[in-house]
Amino acid sequence: MAAEKITSRAKDYSQWYLDIVNRAGLAENSDVRGCMVIKPHGYAIWEKIQRSLDRLFKDTGHVNAYFPLFIPKSFLAREEQMAEGFAKECAVITHHRLKAIPGRGVEVDPESKLEEPLIVRPTSETIIWNTYRNWVQSYRDLPLLINQWANVVRWEMRTRLFLRTAEFLWQEGHTAHATQQEAEEETRRMVEVYRTFAEDWMAMPVLVGPKSEGQKFPGAIYTLCIEAMMQDKKALQAGTSHFLGQNFAKAFDVKFQDRDGKVEYAWATSWGVSTRLIGGLIMTHSDDQGLVLPPRLAPIHAVIVPIYKSDAEKSAVLEAANKLAQSIRDLPLREWLNYEPVSVKVDDRDQYQPGFKFNEWELKGVPVRVELGPKDLAKGACVLARRDLPGKEAKEMGVPLANAATRIGEMLQAMQKALFDRARNFRDQNIHEINTYDEFKKSIEEPGGFFLAHWDGTRETEDRIAAETKATIRCIPFDRKQESGKCMVTGQPSEGRVVFAKAY
Amino acid sequence: MAAEKITSRAKDYSQWYLDIVNRAGLAENSDVRGCMVIKPHGYAIWEKIQRSLDRLFKDTGHVNAYFPLFIPKSFLAREEQMAEGFAKECAVITHHRLKAIPGRGVEVDPESKLEEPLIVRPTSETIIWNTYRNWVQSYRDLPLLINQWANVVRWEMRTRLFLRTAEFLWQEGHTAHATQQEAEEETRRMVEVYRTFAEDWMAMPVLVGPKSEGQKFPGAIYTLCIEAMMQDKKALQAGTSHFLGQNFAKAFDVKFQDRDGKVEYAWATSWGVSTRLIGGLIMTHSDDQGLVLPPRLAPIHAVIVPIYKSDAEKSAVLEAANKLAQSIRDLPLREWLNYEPVSVKVDDRDQYQPGFKFNEWELKGVPVRVELGPKDLAKGACVLARRDLPGKEAKEMGVPLANAATRIGEMLQAMQKALFDRARNFRDQNIHEINTYDEFKKSIEEPGGFFLAHWDGTRETEDRIAAETKATIRCIPFDRKQESGKCMVTGQPSEGRVVFAKAY
Repeated sequence: MAAEKITSRAKDYSQWYLDIVNRAGLAENSDVRGCMVIKPHGYAIWEKIQRSLDRLFKDTGHVNAYFPLFIPKSFLAREEQMAEGFAKECAVITHHRLKAIPGRGVEVDPESKLEEPLIVRPTSETIIWNTYRNWVQSYRDLPLLINQWANVVRWEMRTRLFLRTAEFLWQEGHTAHATQQEAEEETRRMVEVYRTFAEDWMAMPVLVGPKSEGQKFPGAIYTLCIEAMMQDKKALQAGTSHFLGQNFAKAFDVKFQDRDGKVEYAWATSWGVSTRLIGGLIMTHSDDQGLVLPPRLAPIHAVIVPIYKSDAEKSAVLEAANKLAQSIRDLPLREWLNYEPVSVKVDDRDQYQPGFKFNEWELKGVPVRVELGPKDLAKGACVLARRDLPGKEAKEMGVPLANAATRIGEMLQAMQKALFDRARNFRDQNIHEINTYDEFKKSIEEPGGFFLAHWDGTRETEDRIAAETKATIRCIPFDRKQESGKCMVTGQPSEGRVVFAKAY
Repeated sequence: MAAEKITSRAKDYSQWYLDIVNRAGLAENSDVRGCMVIKPHGYAIWEKIQRSLDRLFKDTGHVNAYFPLFIPKSFLAREEQMAEGFAKECAVITHHRLKAIPGRGVEVDPESKLEEPLIVRPTSETIIWNTYRNWVQSYRDLPLLINQWANVVRWEMRTRLFLRTAEFLWQEGHTAHATQQEAEEETRRMVEVYRTFAEDWMAMPVLVGPKSEGQKFPGAIYTLCIEAMMQDKKALQAGTSHFLGQNFAKAFDVKFQDRDGKVEYAWATSWGVSTRLIGGLIMTHSDDQGLVLPPRLAPIHAVIVPIYKSDAEKSAVLEAANKLAQSIRDLPLREWLNYEPVSVKVDDRDQYQPGFKFNEWELKGVPVRVELGPKDLAKGACVLARRDLPGKEAKEMGVPLANAATRIGEMLQAMQKALFDRARNFRDQNIHEINTYDEFKKSIEEPGGFFLAHWDGTRETEDRIAAETKATIRCIPFDRKQESGKCMVTGQPSEGRVVFAKAY
């Protein structure tokens, strides 16, 4: 239980990230290649993410459903880009039985070979559109506005906890519409839901806009995305919303009779975010002391650490602590917290000293710490500390107990805003316009960041830049300034600047 | 959209069940062998079940986490009973890549063969205890009180929607303790949580007690269960809680230093319920008109069907309907409904007639229907109908709008109680003591039900009875009367009566 220091961001950013994931008890690698164990504190954050996002989905008219984990191999072949995009990295089920071999454990029973192999879903467009065929006959059956919370598997060779794992948890929305316009509106609506979630809940500012051809989803006409900047100035793709046109309807024969009696193929969208968001949360806000969580997604909002020596002190301090805890739980923040109660923990564990507890809760990212000892109690007061502020600035001494709950409510809301503002300032300070390819090649290495550059719009140039610099086009922001120019690489005409960065 | 009648229970119980699942939009078979699609209304019920159970778990000190979908083949071999119990029916992953073959779609790439095959988890004891090895060093690290919400796969040959499917959704609790006593207390605590959930939320009365040796979980020392009677008098195992002793700790080397410095193996429990509960819900309460849902688990509590002809009528009626809906949402039932709002739908779809809507919501099991037309409005009143009562008894005419919300709150609570009482009466009327094997063999066929009979306690007799009658020992109820006797089959001494029934 010795408190080893976390590696600092300055010293080794990758190690700092792994230290946070490990020391805050968020996740660990399992003995199954590429698969992670999401530990209780990490899963509690995922539950917060799920519930808040789920409400945003339901408020925009969506319902949840559940489709099979397995996809027949032949389904993948029906949509050409899909097969190319996902066939290379998937878990293939070929048998359905093991048998015990005396002295040798269990072996695959060759007699149980499947007629058609199954793959574990890497994404569910194929199995869902195969199902929609029976659900859609008339325009009256549309739109279908369905979301699924599920696990998916992509056989990644190089994995990193939360950011890239073979199995991950996600949600995938799959909608079917009677018209192209409606489907395109849905595609845009959902990327805006993601923006709202990223900015208002995760306190993580994002750029929003389409991906380039080279970066879009296999099978999509176009992909919209939210793109965030991490503290090492690299980009994280945090959510995508795809307009799929009629590709899947044609591949799976999903037709309907429109208002005029004409038979049409349905129009599709799909959109998803995953446990990768937890990686984004860590890399946006955390510091060299540990995890920092935006209050709206914190599993525990405030921890009260009682300080005492004698039994008499303990009983008086714990009584006051429990009373304060209840008044914090009663704070009128229900709507702000997605109708879940304010979560308060009184850390009354006898086997640990207060200093140990302070460190532990700092490491785990609890937004507000309350210190309460006999001297505080004698003054009818307590000490409050806000997780995101440095050193002495974090502490408020002598806060009257009668006002403490209200003050904590204010601190939670102020912290949510401060985290967003700090992250946005950081991002904005690290976005640069750049005009020559030489300058670009230098700057992408040092100082790094997001670079707004003119590009000729071709896949060829995009691929060349990626090959030469490892930077990719992250997004063509909806709100970019109107400015035509010349491609920094080829000198060909450009319709406007796009965002280049190195990315996770 | 023609309203085909549901097959009646009396005519064909199995078909009635499938008709309900189909017509209420709960689930359907997919094109993947044995896997179901859980449709939005079915999934909404599962979400209700999840949230209510999850709160009961957290209130008893448990936290959620997530472990890998895949289990290395060798793990299964480490616990002998586990290997025997699950190896016969599992999805085996042997390769990790497909490749495109021009003109032939995609094929499994033989070069991507895994060194060690993986199986899709049929249950997670092995992977979880393999993880716990690194989490447990000292008694201070115990207990681990962890639950997982997940999908699991068992390669069932004969499937039935919700009741038995190859893939299903469930929760599995896996706890580790420092002492046998603590683990046994946990085993009992969790079966009682299941009883509470079954009776207070599902309104489904259950018998509670251990399984016989022949029916226990592979790898368990003993299994406790909740067992319910369906309307065809067959039994449904609805939840199990296993005391696993030190079997998994020994198989995966999970040791800790106890208070005295001695190294011990940890003690284990596991417990689970699944989407099978939705099958139980249907078969406990539903009728020949469709689904009947206990209000505490209903995704929609009340539907308001406005009745109008002219536009003027429509606007007046809808205004009153929306006002009433809001007052229903504001009912003080939050705690009773697990802190989720009362859910009300105003069915303002123009394309359907009121009669069609009445049928649809009846089919879907909405507990209370409100009818509101211009004549009602003129009297400042509405008509209420309770889903579980027959014919005219269901209706309350001329309920003043000012009282309607309160009255609906009362009806929801009364209905929850009435469903439980009706199910318990039915169950109690169909439990019989029986003393001879001849009588047993006749009665198990007709009239059927649960039979309390003496049994000599041997596996041999248990297996013989199962082979000859298809009835199994469902449970040895905790609250059985103290009565020794003689086994109905062998005449050997019996410690008390056990419950026999045919089961799903």
